[in-house]
Amino acid sequence: MTKAPDNLFCPEQNFYGPGSEKIYIDGLIHPVKVGMRRIKLSKTYTFQDGEFSSFPLYDTSGPYSDPSAELDLRKGLSCIRDGWHSERNDIEVSPGSIVSSMNGRNPVRAKEGMPVTQMHYARKGIVTPEMEYVSIRENQQLEAWIEQFSSGGRTFKPVTPEFVRDEVAKGRAIIPANINHPELEPMIIGRNFRVKINANIGNSALGSSISEEVEKAVWACRWGADTVMDLSTGENIHQTREWILRNSPVPVGTVPIYQALEKVGGVAEELTWEIYRKTLIEQAEQGVDYFTIHAGIRRDFLPAAARRLTGIVSRGGSIIAKWCRAHNRENFLYTHFDEICEILRAYDIAISIGDALRPGSVADANDEAQFSELKTLGELTLKAWEHDVQVMIEGPGHVPLNLIEENMQKQLEYCHEAPFYTLGPLVTDIAAGYDHVNSAIGGTLLASLGCAMLCYVTPKEHLGLPNKNDVREGVIVHKLAAHAADLAKGNPIAWLHDNLMSSARYSFAWNDQFNLSFDPVKTRQAHAENSPDSSGKIMEDNFCTMCGPDFCSMKKSQEVNKE
Amino acid sequence: MTKAPDNLFCPEQNFYGPGSEKIYIDGLIHPVKVGMRRIKLSKTYTFQDGEFSSFPLYDTSGPYSDPSAELDLRKGLSCIRDGWHSERNDIEVSPGSIVSSMNGRNPVRAKEGMPVTQMHYARKGIVTPEMEYVSIRENQQLEAWIEQFSSGGRTFKPVTPEFVRDEVAKGRAIIPANINHPELEPMIIGRNFRVKINANIGNSALGSSISEEVEKAVWACRWGADTVMDLSTGENIHQTREWILRNSPVPVGTVPIYQALEKVGGVAEELTWEIYRKTLIEQAEQGVDYFTIHAGIRRDFLPAAARRLTGIVSRGGSIIAKWCRAHNRENFLYTHFDEICEILRAYDIAISIGDALRPGSVADANDEAQFSELKTLGELTLKAWEHDVQVMIEGPGHVPLNLIEENMQKQLEYCHEAPFYTLGPLVTDIAAGYDHVNSAIGGTLLASLGCAMLCYVTPKEHLGLPNKNDVREGVIVHKLAAHAADLAKGNPIAWLHDNLMSSARYSFAWNDQFNLSFDPVKTRQAHAENSPDSSGKIMEDNFCTMCGPDFCSMKKSQEVNKE
Repeated sequence: MTKAPDNLFCPEQNFYGPGSEKIYIDGLIHPVKVGMRRIKLSKTYTFQDGEFSSFPLYDTSGPYSDPSAELDLRKGLSCIRDGWHSERNDIEVSPGSIVSSMNGRNPVRAKEGMPVTQMHYARKGIVTPEMEYVSIRENQQLEAWIEQFSSGGRTFKPVTPEFVRDEVAKGRAIIPANINHPELEPMIIGRNFRVKINANIGNSALGSSISEEVEKAVWACRWGADTVMDLSTGENIHQTREWILRNSPVPVGTVPIYQALEKVGGVAEELTWEIYRKTLIEQAEQGVDYFTIHAGIRRDFLPAAARRLTGIVSRGGSIIAKWCRAHNRENFLYTHFDEICEILRAYDIAISIGDALRPGSVADANDEAQFSELKTLGELTLKAWEHDVQVMIEGPGHVPLNLIEENMQKQLEYCHEAPFYTLGPLVTDIAAGYDHVNSAIGGTLLASLGCAMLCYVTPKEHLGLPNKNDVREGVIVHKLAAHAADLAKGNPIAWLHDNLMSSARYSFAWNDQFNLSFDPVKTRQAHAENSPDSSGKIMEDNFCTMCGPDFCSMKKSQEVNKE
Repeated sequence: MTKAPDNLFCPEQNFYGPGSEKIYIDGLIHPVKVGMRRIKLSKTYTFQDGEFSSFPLYDTSGPYSDPSAELDLRKGLSCIRDGWHSERNDIEVSPGSIVSSMNGRNPVRAKEGMPVTQMHYARKGIVTPEMEYVSIRENQQLEAWIEQFSSGGRTFKPVTPEFVRDEVAKGRAIIPANINHPELEPMIIGRNFRVKINANIGNSALGSSISEEVEKAVWACRWGADTVMDLSTGENIHQTREWILRNSPVPVGTVPIYQALEKVGGVAEELTWEIYRKTLIEQAEQGVDYFTIHAGIRRDFLPAAARRLTGIVSRGGSIIAKWCRAHNRENFLYTHFDEICEILRAYDIAISIGDALRPGSVADANDEAQFSELKTLGELTLKAWEHDVQVMIEGPGHVPLNLIEENMQKQLEYCHEAPFYTLGPLVTDIAAGYDHVNSAIGGTLLASLGCAMLCYVTPKEHLGLPNKNDVREGVIVHKLAAHAADLAKGNPIAWLHDNLMSSARYSFAWNDQFNLSFDPVKTRQAHAENSPDSSGKIMEDNFCTMCGPDFCSMKKSQEVNKE
């Protein structure tokens, strides 16, 4: 196994700096402990009859921001979900499978004929520990305050475990949580919850090492990624995934056809259902939480795709298209979809039905190929739900701003309200080097209309593989997009967060501003660089370096109000 | 005068790298020469019956990207507008004014009772050289192709000099072009033209030198700023502005109250109309092209502003508010508005009526204070038009995504279609360190609905003064926002640009991709860093470093189509 460099982690786990602490909230139904980052504010701010001298934040960083956690990358994280499943007697050790090289565990699977998915339990009326966990997480300890919050005549309710169960039962939300990923801190993806973001990592044949990718995954969680996808191709796919899974507190997604293609030496035509099936099981038993499966690209759609400006830009889609043409047969992921669902059901792996025909340029947006496939994704959704498999639907891609709304409308119409998970969309083709911003623009609009999760895009999109700093930029600008969409949707906690920041700004409480920002490390640094004496000390005066004392509008505005 | 450092400019003016050349298009009516950057494409691409082996780009960089231009920062740019005004006999040397310290010229002004504004000429039916210049500029030599372009059943027309005249006459567009800024390459701001962006520069009492600010201004133009605003406070205001104006090929805007406040030692209460009036004339005679004037914040609006979460966040607005309270009198910019217009008319300075009561937090968006002021800006617009003064209206600020559309609707309704010029808007308050992205998100949506110009925001917003790299990031992401809005509005040239890029991408033409991107320097660099052999050479193979040869979707997609 590749040795981890000594400097792989930030030496101190108090990553966020002064004023933040890690707290854990206990469940009332189950023995869950939900980690959050609590900010101690320098004064008490008020908002809608609430008084806030601290503020607990939704926290994706898991043990990596807990100074008391013992971390060793070679062993992986501790298994917080151990025991959550104990009373059900519906799982068994999977015979003949690969034992984890890191935690030494035997993979488990559902007993014959016993689905173990969150959707199955939800439909049976069972509130699982995972469901309670995500309900606590979404509320940020603000239940009482949310009850009395109102905005524009609307009132709001905190997220209850029962509400989570109901949304999962209806297929409107998913909790990706493979029974073989005990290190996972569960989270929920659905349009009636906070908008989430995914960070893609993974090496290609041309570069990057296992430890680089693990480091990116860990930092992605720290910066705010709600899930990560390991898109490794090239060598060491199994081992890279093992390291990432064992060290990941967030759900991990993959695109299994990448590994299947490696198994046949990169020759798409040689892929078989049997090779693919074995790959699914291998990854299922390692603990992957959701699979992107391009089952909706049908042979009949290929002529429409061939007429496009940029053809097929999904890697998985182009592999399948090549296979279909070579064999003159229907996509084997479509024809074997029931068998795929049976495998997924045995581990509770969610399916992220891939949009192989997403537009790769604004010219191809909302075209026949794209929407024909989307309709098929809707058909497959119903089929997966028959197996109690949790589903989300992948979306574009490249879409100009004026065509974004139609994507959401059609997705809701065709796909029966299964959560929408999109890559941007990018609103222009010419933004290479700044495609993270391009994606955040389209993503904000789409998420404000109901898209449940945004896949990040980094500044390296269309140019090369992202490095650690690209991952940071990609994660943060998509956190920004997701949060802005939450605000537009009226989420009370998002509004509280913004109000606290504005109050801190208006009262020159610099530390509170840093802690309430998406990236406390960067804001502290940027502000210190601009301090008049360059000492890096935080200014105590009631003005800032942008305008200086005579031109501070907030200072003057307060003086006016006092007079 | 501060000496310019030797390395102030990029040593070679072939800034964009291989494949770009500077060209000049001659006017048909007037002796104007319009500079553009022409990209030589590596192959011929087709789009809507056009064949393109080169592509001329709208170019804001002026002589700074012309290898044949002789540049000397100490002398300023050559005066391309000399002679454009010669036949009219309506201007005279301004008596008793300050001679330019850099080009040694005497300032000119209109002869008594003779307006010299573009709006005046437009209303008289006169097509000025400035109008012809901008019409050529907007078309990018694509007149013939635009005539036969159609999209979704819509057809389009190239921009004619007569159309420009008509839009200016109606007040729907402005051409900010002070008769004392002969170095200017004219441009137009209006919702029936390409969306424009402004870059703010300028030092504060706490830092930065003249040469730093001049360097930022020059680089802002190179990266794509359509106008720059010099917001300097602190010392050397006059001299900094002189350097910027003499070296600026784009319109320069200022907020004259900043200098007026310096003249009274930073004490707002001591401002007088007389001091302000003299400041206007001083700046008018230097050549400032547009003034932000906070004439719309009336005394009666202050109680509504006092009830806000973040009060008044406009620097100019807070100064006026303080003055109003101290003297218990109406805003002197409101009461002297006619006299202000008379001054502006004598130099053809456009007024950018300031939104002193723009929201400083999402909580304050679209509130009584903001919209009361906006109505007043509409009244002032009609008054300025009576004087033939060109007008644009400044807008927010901080607005959540769901409240953005109302801003555009109300601005059109209240302000009689005068162009809207907004700062973002930012769609959340918590994005410190990433506020450039925050602003690009809101700006894209607002511009797609009709906002004519976006003021950039840099990553340093809310934290400190931007450095050169912050200016670059701010400019480029707002270029991106403006372009994405043009696409959403159906602009044929924007669509052509995107289509060329997508064609280049699909045919692995890397140099074309770099040249068609917003930032060729960055894309070249990013791609070189990812080359397999690290030699920086551009890959010739039909795949890229993101996916490697086996996983390149575009390569596979083309193979499928060939079969």
